[in-house]
Amino acid sequence: MEPTFHHAGIATEDADALAALYRDTFGLTVAHTETFDGIYIVFLACGGSYFELLEPVDNDTVAGFLERQGRGVHHLALAVEDVESALYQARENGVEAIDDSPREGAWGHEVAFLHPRDTGGVLVEFVGH
Amino acid sequence: MEPTFHHAGIATEDADALAALYRDTFGLTVAHTETFDGIYIVFLACGGSYFELLEPVDNDTVAGFLERQGRGVHHLALAVEDVESALYQARENGVEAIDDSPREGAWGHEVAFLHPRDTGGVLVEFVGH
Repeated sequence: MEPTFHHAGIATEDADALAALYRDTFGLTVAHTETFDGIYIVFLACGGSYFELLEPVDNDTVAGFLERQGRGVHHLALAVEDVESALYQARENGVEAIDDSPREGAWGHEVAFLHPRDTGGVLVEFVGH
Repeated sequence: MEPTFHHAGIATEDADALAALYRDTFGLTVAHTETFDGIYIVFLACGGSYFELLEPVDNDTVAGFLERQGRGVHHLALAVEDVESALYQARENGVEAIDDSPREGAWGHEVAFLHPRDTGGVLVEFVGH
């Protein structure tokens, strides 16, 4: 089954400031905020999809991304029916997963990340229900 | 009015190969292909949004991006009611536009790009009708 586009994850040093800028500039509104895995996260609604603003509070992965590459798009997330099946299909096509099995992600979703080396340089996240 | 997520633009050296990988791995199917402004472009349908695969044939901007940053996400595009109004609202919020006024983009859409320096490191494209 065709997935849908769930969100674009964007690394930033100040998620609230970026949320305010995107609200004023694009009309995007806050749908959810939480601190998860040491990352302060702001989800902005954008039609049926989201922008996920990621501000590292105590998370070396996102902090390291900001240091190496600077602000900007960190990952793209696809909403899938079943994360386990999506992981299986990815592996069948030679795509290595960062997460061997689905794990809990932000906003209570089941998630798994794929290795960007195998997906055209894009860090892809599967998001389940 | 709230925009919707139109597409994620992804720079690649081989758009057909990446389209085949995304078809097999994610179940995304080709919605449209064209060569525009020296870029061979493949749009993949993803729910109501798209992935736009960008392969430079004779385009220094995308070729330069691949040389500097390598494969991966190049820009994010928002579908807006009116590109001219969206540009006006961006400028009112201190966001500089790369395109001073709407221009013709891929797939017959009116488009305009904003400067990533002013939008949290994200190259944002407005896509009109």
